[in-house]
Amino acid sequence: MAEPFQVGLLGYGTVGQAFAELLEARADAVAAVTGLRPELSGVLTRSRGEFSDLLERSHLIVEVMGGVEPAREYVLAAMRAGRHVVSANKLLLSQHGEELWACAREHGVQLRFEAAVAGVVPVIRVLQETLAAAHVERLHGIVNGTTNYILTEMTRGGLAYEEALARAQALGYAEADPTDDVTGRDAAAKMAILARLAFDTPVHLDQVVYEGIEQITPDDIAYAQELGLGLKLLGTAERVDGGLSVRVHPVFLYGSHPLASVHGPFNAVTVESDQITEITMSGPGAGGPQTASAVLGDVISAMIPPATTPETTQSLTIVDDIHSGFYLHLEVADRPGVLAQVAELLGLQGASIKSVVQRGLGDNARLVMVLHPLPESRFFAAVRMIGQLEFMRSAPRAIRVIEEEFD
Amino acid sequence: MAEPFQVGLLGYGTVGQAFAELLEARADAVAAVTGLRPELSGVLTRSRGEFSDLLERSHLIVEVMGGVEPAREYVLAAMRAGRHVVSANKLLLSQHGEELWACAREHGVQLRFEAAVAGVVPVIRVLQETLAAAHVERLHGIVNGTTNYILTEMTRGGLAYEEALARAQALGYAEADPTDDVTGRDAAAKMAILARLAFDTPVHLDQVVYEGIEQITPDDIAYAQELGLGLKLLGTAERVDGGLSVRVHPVFLYGSHPLASVHGPFNAVTVESDQITEITMSGPGAGGPQTASAVLGDVISAMIPPATTPETTQSLTIVDDIHSGFYLHLEVADRPGVLAQVAELLGLQGASIKSVVQRGLGDNARLVMVLHPLPESRFFAAVRMIGQLEFMRSAPRAIRVIEEEFD
Repeated sequence: MAEPFQVGLLGYGTVGQAFAELLEARADAVAAVTGLRPELSGVLTRSRGEFSDLLERSHLIVEVMGGVEPAREYVLAAMRAGRHVVSANKLLLSQHGEELWACAREHGVQLRFEAAVAGVVPVIRVLQETLAAAHVERLHGIVNGTTNYILTEMTRGGLAYEEALARAQALGYAEADPTDDVTGRDAAAKMAILARLAFDTPVHLDQVVYEGIEQITPDDIAYAQELGLGLKLLGTAERVDGGLSVRVHPVFLYGSHPLASVHGPFNAVTVESDQITEITMSGPGAGGPQTASAVLGDVISAMIPPATTPETTQSLTIVDDIHSGFYLHLEVADRPGVLAQVAELLGLQGASIKSVVQRGLGDNARLVMVLHPLPESRFFAAVRMIGQLEFMRSAPRAIRVIEEEFD
Repeated sequence: MAEPFQVGLLGYGTVGQAFAELLEARADAVAAVTGLRPELSGVLTRSRGEFSDLLERSHLIVEVMGGVEPAREYVLAAMRAGRHVVSANKLLLSQHGEELWACAREHGVQLRFEAAVAGVVPVIRVLQETLAAAHVERLHGIVNGTTNYILTEMTRGGLAYEEALARAQALGYAEADPTDDVTGRDAAAKMAILARLAFDTPVHLDQVVYEGIEQITPDDIAYAQELGLGLKLLGTAERVDGGLSVRVHPVFLYGSHPLASVHGPFNAVTVESDQITEITMSGPGAGGPQTASAVLGDVISAMIPPATTPETTQSLTIVDDIHSGFYLHLEVADRPGVLAQVAELLGLQGASIKSVVQRGLGDNARLVMVLHPLPESRFFAAVRMIGQLEFMRSAPRAIRVIEEEFD
């Protein structure tokens, strides 16, 4: 039985509750990776629990209470007591980061904060580790899911700002008071943290210029679409004339830009440097389970030395016959009854047609279809039989299709 | 002066040479992060150098020679001698990974291999750290840049496979003998490594089913485009019926799929699980400097304990006035000379018009334009003057534009 590792939790809102659940659900998996079994030593909220008592019983402190005080005081006290800290608190880090990092260095503990920016998108880790010595030229981020959702709705549905905001609130993507999100302040706090890491220069929230999306009209979005442009609330940190510019603005992007296809409540960050060209990372920027996953990744990293060489903890069977959707292209003689015969053979194997294009080309016709997923062995059995039909002009051509449509 | 840290280099091809250059160029930056100054202790190639001598003089070994032997023998010997190893060798890891990882565990050293899969895209680190205890459901990857470039060319230019391959070879995206790439074998080796990490199950290259792109016709691509589909050579590793399926096939994706917009020689990986929804990472999959950057990230991680809290090594000035492109939307009285007056005011501030849409709406007209980048202060000066023109029907609306077009 693995030794226990006690995790003290500060804050029990959406993220705190999701983290407590996830920690229990994945405790065995964490034990397999780290050799230690994580347990919740206790929970502190503004109304219950006693901090010094919780600290005493914990090997590591997770801070997901938000706001500056008392979070700052607790995080400092935990590090002074030699505890690693994992925090999801962007406001705290963007305003008191230098003080907190100095304290962590002084006491030889880790302060991890992946969940403070872009949720489960691993941008903090990549900046601190993969790109630790890279000369970053520029970083672009869509780091606020609320505004990205609102802009997506305004673009797709032609909604006015107020309508899109109301929809975001109804779906839980925006809070009752959305000020921090829609003014760009939330994104500015995150950009301060990212700029600090990418450029090794202290950046305080107050130094980030920001502008929100309250003034955007569907009209602007529609006109700009004619010019090939789509709108995002974009954070930028880049070297300019030997200095650093950090800002958040609404910005139009051409459709081919790596961030143009980031829709709805997703976040994404692009890091550019001469050596790496560019890396783009995207994923859900918020949400209890997703943010809790980012916190857990940090907890695990704090528990172990780096780069554990993987042990085999599972032994899944390697599977051969899977379900796939298919594109099927048939070159056939142009005569009645062809589609019926093909459809019958497909039906015998349980294949179901999602879409079909039929086109005559003189004596030759093309029958091109997309099939819903079915076991590959059954699909190929049908194709073998179809290939033997006397009206076939060439061998059937099949390519797999991923049916899911994202947005 | 920081203590030296000796790095021994096995292999001096494109990646080896780029790494040697990068290590020297970034030595100061690495010293700032790690406290140790990396130096090249020597280079071993098939024709020069003596391994045991190089090993003796090195704190860490970088293996970028490729192929199975003698790379395997050298990597094992280095780990047995207590040296950390960073390797970019996908063939080696996909066939002898279990032996190598067991050796690393036994000798308490790190074996890092970010550069073996998807170049600088940090997928190995994210699987081993961020998602160390996540229950991954599925992983999709475009992990071969050569075939992605060929398919992109076939799609955009309607080229035949052979023509697109020849173009890839001319640009250095495909080798003279492209067999490993176009048959899917290279992608299969990378998928074996990714599946091993994502599912904690040993996966050997021989267990990965793969199919290449040699049979694809531009015809199929064109028909499928009518159905909203784009073609990728896709690696998939996913849980199926309590087992694991790992495979590489040409697959059609709908345009909204996160991997549909990965074009040219880029690589990308999407990891899905219930807790995280999905994370997508993309970037250049190959290239000397990019792969060398991934190797350097691993070297730095092996040099230091994790999660160094950032020290301030730079102190860049925070810059206010930057260059931006702009979208400018003017509601004007519909009369002659309006565009000329606006253009003159813009010209006085050095603004240059990239594209413009003018449209009459009864007495009201809209003048919508995109301007090339100029200092923001000058743009806003022009907008203030334009706002005072007597034919303006409402305040000018301005939104920044990122001009770069990607592909």
